[in-house]
Amino acid sequence: MEIALAELARKIGGTLEGDGALVIRGVAGVREAREGDLSFVANPRYAPDVAQTRASAVIVDRKWDKPCSAALIRCAHADRAFAEAAMIFAPNAPPCEPGVHPSAVIAPDARLGEGVSVGPLCVVEAGAVIGDRTVLRACVYVGFQSRVGSDGLLHPNVSIRENCVIGDRVILHNGVVVGSDGFGYTVEEDGSRRKIPQIGTVEIGNDVEIGANTTVDRARFGCTRIGNGVKIDNLVQIGHNVQVGDYTVVVAQTGIAGSTEIGRNVILAGQSGIAGHLVIGDGAVIGGQSGVGKDVPPGETWRGSPARPIREMMKADAALLRLPQMKRALADLEARVRKLEGGETRPG
Amino acid sequence: MEIALAELARKIGGTLEGDGALVIRGVAGVREAREGDLSFVANPRYAPDVAQTRASAVIVDRKWDKPCSAALIRCAHADRAFAEAAMIFAPNAPPCEPGVHPSAVIAPDARLGEGVSVGPLCVVEAGAVIGDRTVLRACVYVGFQSRVGSDGLLHPNVSIRENCVIGDRVILHNGVVVGSDGFGYTVEEDGSRRKIPQIGTVEIGNDVEIGANTTVDRARFGCTRIGNGVKIDNLVQIGHNVQVGDYTVVVAQTGIAGSTEIGRNVILAGQSGIAGHLVIGDGAVIGGQSGVGKDVPPGETWRGSPARPIREMMKADAALLRLPQMKRALADLEARVRKLEGGETRPG
Amino acid sequence: MEIALAELARKIGGTLEGDGALVIRGVAGVREAREGDLSFVANPRYAPDVAQTRASAVIVDRKWDKPCSAALIRCAHADRAFAEAAMIFAPNAPPCEPGVHPSAVIAPDARLGEGVSVGPLCVVEAGAVIGDRTVLRACVYVGFQSRVGSDGLLHPNVSIRENCVIGDRVILHNGVVVGSDGFGYTVEEDGSRRKIPQIGTVEIGNDVEIGANTTVDRARFGCTRIGNGVKIDNLVQIGHNVQVGDYTVVVAQTGIAGSTEIGRNVILAGQSGIAGHLVIGDGAVIGGQSGVGKDVPPGETWRGSPARPIREMMKADAALLRLPQMKRALADLEARVRKLEGGETRPG
Repeated sequence: MEIALAELARKIGGTLEGDGALVIRGVAGVREAREGDLSFVANPRYAPDVAQTRASAVIVDRKWDKPCSAALIRCAHADRAFAEAAMIFAPNAPPCEPGVHPSAVIAPDARLGEGVSVGPLCVVEAGAVIGDRTVLRACVYVGFQSRVGSDGLLHPNVSIRENCVIGDRVILHNGVVVGSDGFGYTVEEDGSRRKIPQIGTVEIGNDVEIGANTTVDRARFGCTRIGNGVKIDNLVQIGHNVQVGDYTVVVAQTGIAGSTEIGRNVILAGQSGIAGHLVIGDGAVIGGQSGVGKDVPPGETWRGSPARPIREMMKADAALLRLPQMKRALADLEARVRKLEGGETRPG
Repeated sequence: MEIALAELARKIGGTLEGDGALVIRGVAGVREAREGDLSFVANPRYAPDVAQTRASAVIVDRKWDKPCSAALIRCAHADRAFAEAAMIFAPNAPPCEPGVHPSAVIAPDARLGEGVSVGPLCVVEAGAVIGDRTVLRACVYVGFQSRVGSDGLLHPNVSIRENCVIGDRVILHNGVVVGSDGFGYTVEEDGSRRKIPQIGTVEIGNDVEIGANTTVDRARFGCTRIGNGVKIDNLVQIGHNVQVGDYTVVVAQTGIAGSTEIGRNVILAGQSGIAGHLVIGDGAVIGGQSGVGKDVPPGETWRGSPARPIREMMKADAALLRLPQMKRALADLEARVRKLEGGETRPG
Repeated sequence: MEIALAELARKIGGTLEGDGALVIRGVAGVREAREGDLSFVANPRYAPDVAQTRASAVIVDRKWDKPCSAALIRCAHADRAFAEAAMIFAPNAPPCEPGVHPSAVIAPDARLGEGVSVGPLCVVEAGAVIGDRTVLRACVYVGFQSRVGSDGLLHPNVSIRENCVIGDRVILHNGVVVGSDGFGYTVEEDGSRRKIPQIGTVEIGNDVEIGANTTVDRARFGCTRIGNGVKIDNLVQIGHNVQVGDYTVVVAQTGIAGSTEIGRNVILAGQSGIAGHLVIGDGAVIGGQSGVGKDVPPGETWRGSPARPIREMMKADAALLRLPQMKRALADLEARVRKLEGGETRPG
């Protein structure tokens, strides 16, 4: 793929400053870019990288005023414009035609919407419904009476258990499991455990994306609910009866235990763990590897294991760093007291 | 589904206190319940919730004596009775008939017991054995010469490698991997690593349940062994040659490194990590996100990373909280000593 | 399988000290071994175990000089010799013949090398290339225009998305996902998130092994790159645009966030987390459960969350352990100062 810089600027609605005849062949970050690459910068703290970039052109915001030897394309939102530009250079996407591959196994009473594409070796069980234009790439399993909305994209090895409901424009990456049983047992007199039936379901809103090999357990009863616009990364565990509010982001390898309510616009950073039966308020931010054992009020940032408000955490960390100094101060004071007591002074 | 309260009480063997003609339409927790719902309570600390519940009826233990405006059903074990009641309102379960779906690929010398159900696109390799009434839901892979016991339930995308042995009444959730190679290499002179063959197997006992996308590695030689009645949650890693004792519970995202022995009735809370070649005694409890690097004696509760007995851990936490106070005490003492030394006192 | 000790010693090129007529029936660790077993020891700290072993024979290094009642086989490298010996007793491996199982779905223009084996219910999409002698065991998905090298082994439920490149002699365990979308969004004015297209790919070098249910995200643009000889354990998350240097080892449940560069010969122990946009130098070692938030210089060992150089970490840990003692010292000093001040002494 080759495109003249002037045409590229026109396509993404930007203002060109530089040689429009330059040929652009690809996109890259400002540090990795080489001649012929288009790059972008949104954050002024990367100005030094921009000054040194080998990119032929850089997309910047309208008010960018840092030095750059490359051609510039000024746009209202550099990051979005770059996303558009990157699509021009994207490798071929896999073809995806409507219709059902002959190797797929579709129950007679399953309902497929208009323009649905079902790839090889998919299974759609009895009573399941697939919305218009949704793509089941290959090897996708949709269980008994589950419903998937329209314009969805389900990658290979996704499996959705029975009676689950998935919204519109949902992307599920490879290996995602929706609707596995929650983890619940009663303890018998002999120490053995007896399974508590998990007869609830999972409801996933619109515009949700869930990363590879993430698991979302069905509710004990009622619903495990993932709100609209929620973005979940890879290898995340969502326990039974968890509620996740709209627009919340859950980064890789995080775990949320049963019945916890996560608010709207919350960020759970990577490898964090949230205990069960808690409430995490709207807009809260939980740091990476945190272990949250208490409710978190809206808008607060918590960190650590056990997690605490970040200001407390930073004070505690600072106090820890002062420990050796405190130890020295204590020894010094002891020597001075001994001297006052008339004892022998310490050597040196 | 609708059922009169009197009939429901009879079905679960409880004693009704209230209007037997009330119509029950579903089950829910005491907090979430609405009119027409049946709820339950086992723990007296939820008494305030029970007092305020909008549920039409609540299952309680025989000796429950807290106020409740809803009808009551008294039972010997409220939680178990509720589990039974909940089943009455469960959505339809996927149908499951004995027989082999025509799209499944069964090796000619694989042996299927009586009443076995093999769903679409399953693979059962040569020499494999599936016990009576076991269900392979769909897209399940059972490897060469592996044996699965009777009355098991294997959900979609379960894969079991060769030569593994699974007991009776075992439930494996979607994406479970049994028998992947353990992680073992020797280091060569040039820094490269050479694979140590992992020629052992995995043996899983009876009444085991394993959560979605959990991985159980085969032994280097000998067996990775999961005892009877063990319950393992989602996204757990069980390393090669690990031994897990009967009735032990392993919560989501926990990892157990190679050759470690976990005793009976142990609880490993979520996201905990147990290093290799350790012994965790019977009845031990390991807190969430703990990192265990030493043997844990039977019956002890450990927590933290690195994990320590919980009493030590709490002392250390308390000492940490006293740090700012110690800092102030030290400064105060320093001022007093300076005064005794005849130096100038600090202002204020 | 039974074999005389003398013949076994000959097969692995070792020098026998003991009764060559002894019959060996299996292999086991020195502690677990029983009569008829062959064991091995490489590390002198296991000498006490060797002295007490019930194994019939033990493989040792040439200069081993500790007591052992069992027969010995001396070898240049005890661990490698044992690995060879263990293979003799390995259970039957699954048969694997070249050819394509009739249930597999292979695109007409996919190219399969010589001697390739494609098991039941595999999917190889349009434009994909599978190198000579590579085995797709069963239920393996290779996406549009992806290339897998020669002599590879892909276990059931591996899925490789489009446009990825995998080297020679690569082993991918069950449930591995290669090429899922990276986790990247821009935030809109209303708080919703808009997907940043992930149009890059994944390149995996030669001699790489990746554990069960591990996920490797494709790059935003450019490549997520796994070097030659890299060994990755189960349930690991590799973010978009991550670079992993040759011979590096990543232990189970570790997560590496986007755009981080991991050097050569690095060891990331289990459940560690590396934040995004960092550089971890060649030969660095990161302890288990560490949370790395800064660049790590080559050759250094870091530990903790947040991770620090191990020497700092140990000092901090030691200071913490001294806290109760400091508290007592402070109280003692206060009493002495009070006495000097002419106040009343504390009782006792």
